[in-house]
Amino acid sequence: MNTSFHPTPRTLMGPGPSDVHPRVLGAMGKATIGHLDPEFVGLMEEIKDLMRYTFRTSNLLTLPLSAPGSAAMEAAYANLLEPGDKAIVCINGVFGMRMAENVRRMGGELVTVEDEWGTQVDPEKLLAALNDNPDAKIVGFVHAETSTGVCSDVKTLCGLAKEHGCLTIVDSVTGLAGVELNVDEWQADVAYSGTQKCLSAPPGISLITFSQAAADRVKARNTPVQSWFLDVSLLMAYWEGGQGGGRTYHHTAPVNAMYGLHEALLMVKEEGLEQSWEKHRTMHASLYENLSGLGLEFVVDASYRLPQLNLVKVPEGVDEAAVRQQLLQQFNLEIGAGLGAFAGKVWRIGLMGYSARQENVQLCTSALRACLS
Amino acid sequence: MNTSFHPTPRTLMGPGPSDVHPRVLGAMGKATIGHLDPEFVGLMEEIKDLMRYTFRTSNLLTLPLSAPGSAAMEAAYANLLEPGDKAIVCINGVFGMRMAENVRRMGGELVTVEDEWGTQVDPEKLLAALNDNPDAKIVGFVHAETSTGVCSDVKTLCGLAKEHGCLTIVDSVTGLAGVELNVDEWQADVAYSGTQKCLSAPPGISLITFSQAAADRVKARNTPVQSWFLDVSLLMAYWEGGQGGGRTYHHTAPVNAMYGLHEALLMVKEEGLEQSWEKHRTMHASLYENLSGLGLEFVVDASYRLPQLNLVKVPEGVDEAAVRQQLLQQFNLEIGAGLGAFAGKVWRIGLMGYSARQENVQLCTSALRACLS
Repeated sequence: MNTSFHPTPRTLMGPGPSDVHPRVLGAMGKATIGHLDPEFVGLMEEIKDLMRYTFRTSNLLTLPLSAPGSAAMEAAYANLLEPGDKAIVCINGVFGMRMAENVRRMGGELVTVEDEWGTQVDPEKLLAALNDNPDAKIVGFVHAETSTGVCSDVKTLCGLAKEHGCLTIVDSVTGLAGVELNVDEWQADVAYSGTQKCLSAPPGISLITFSQAAADRVKARNTPVQSWFLDVSLLMAYWEGGQGGGRTYHHTAPVNAMYGLHEALLMVKEEGLEQSWEKHRTMHASLYENLSGLGLEFVVDASYRLPQLNLVKVPEGVDEAAVRQQLLQQFNLEIGAGLGAFAGKVWRIGLMGYSARQENVQLCTSALRACLS
Repeated sequence: MNTSFHPTPRTLMGPGPSDVHPRVLGAMGKATIGHLDPEFVGLMEEIKDLMRYTFRTSNLLTLPLSAPGSAAMEAAYANLLEPGDKAIVCINGVFGMRMAENVRRMGGELVTVEDEWGTQVDPEKLLAALNDNPDAKIVGFVHAETSTGVCSDVKTLCGLAKEHGCLTIVDSVTGLAGVELNVDEWQADVAYSGTQKCLSAPPGISLITFSQAAADRVKARNTPVQSWFLDVSLLMAYWEGGQGGGRTYHHTAPVNAMYGLHEALLMVKEEGLEQSWEKHRTMHASLYENLSGLGLEFVVDASYRLPQLNLVKVPEGVDEAAVRQQLLQQFNLEIGAGLGAFAGKVWRIGLMGYSARQENVQLCTSALRACLS
């Protein structure tokens, strides 16, 4: 016979989920109310406002999606792209590859701009692709590549795309609240993120925002969005209300997950966005000093390294999986394995949101020292 | 400045979400662990087994989806249907209409079988449509129509479809654990449900199962599933493991929601599936007696009425919205409004899962008496 599940508490320093703040866990466990309850409707309004603060945007079309970050990526392409539309996707890791896969599956015409894993998206290459493809309608790229720990230059890339008349799709699943992102100032048309990284909430929900230009593109579609579930026009009839002011039922919102998201966003606002970025820098500097002291090397160049996600080379002769297993079993500490081109070669050590604490840095340092000695 | 959200505890007797059991809320608030943690992998195995018990199936391809029931509907069609495939969709309420919309958006050839709202799907009409459309590949219908409170005859409808070589898609979002469903014995090929009805868990997650024939159809596709997020072959590489036995990362599972789903399914098993059905019948009988005593009429014929979702006629001259508002404000009791053809004409009173309790029946009765007197 099965029994209730009692997870062993872990310290989460992988690529996500990160440690969830106790306040957020407490919020998740509050009594469920209806998704059309006036109190819940009030919560929805607050969530949208807090999202605008966190994304630094005044976009009306700003809402959470009832599914994780990869569904937000799909929603971005599903709403902006029509079959036959040309999209330029910049690939420098797993999530750029996933963007390309989305364009392919949706019948878009795909142009890729590829950069080596562990390096930034190269603006020169994007510029060349834009010049070669004057008919391109969309440029997509990843702000903070979770597979490589690289931060790309959102401002420059969006600027180039806009100069060439393209709308931009910016994946900031691992970026939001960890490193600077200014959706309005930097002219990102669609940006999205997840809950389980620098927001310190459990995985399951994503956050997405559409500029007016992106919203206009959706409105001007000739074909319906293939996905009913991710059709942002239908979603907004629930999240924003229709012309008559009434909210139209679309799907039942994940009420308790929204409690968690609200609390997590509130905590970002209480801390302050700049302070959150600064915290991630400070904790990274501390981890860098400590792990360098153990002789470990960081993969990504300091000038574009994400402070919240650190790729560390596995030393010669070390069984990387055995070390991760020992960390988990002996210290209840989770760090991440390498993905794709980096599989077996690196560890991914996250310092995201509530995981970005001095006690985590110290635990990780001494536990790794024990495993490697 | 925003503050933490403190929802007023409600009694949820609408069409869902229903009251969430405290054990499930407690599970949702437990510490988040990684989605690849061996403990979480063990939980995934238990969830699949408990799902098989609840669906009465031995289907290998049985897994939760990281999104609500309407995403499960989309997943069913997205995986089985290829552009140009003919699908017969039976419509007797909102969710049949939604199925039809899914087929349209996916480029399928749609044949509809329509029955009046408040009545069952008519097997004779389905039979005629099958005879008229020997090239149809899929038959979809709703087991328990949340918009009307009607239970259709899954066994008969699936039997007819199978005799004509069609795969079946059965929406049991409101049905599962509330009324009998035998996926294997009744030959349902794809069946899905949600967490927020008779399972007494918060909304946000869905449950889906594919027969071997359905899994074979997916494998034999000529075109990729348009939705990367809902591609069941990719999902199974994470939920079941690949040929090498390893589990492949697809998206980050909603860890805490899975804790809740596990606890909810465990409680169904502890209670026993037959006992759960019986509980819903008993509570329905009690509600029926009480509300009939108030002079209220039930919309749906007793022979196919869902015990867990009761459509009650709004008496002549009564402002239905005002009554619902009074119930919420004065008694913290939520009941549902009518949808579509029934808007303004009925209330929907749910007795699902943890909401199917004698104390809820009594509260609803006396509160309605107070509002209507």
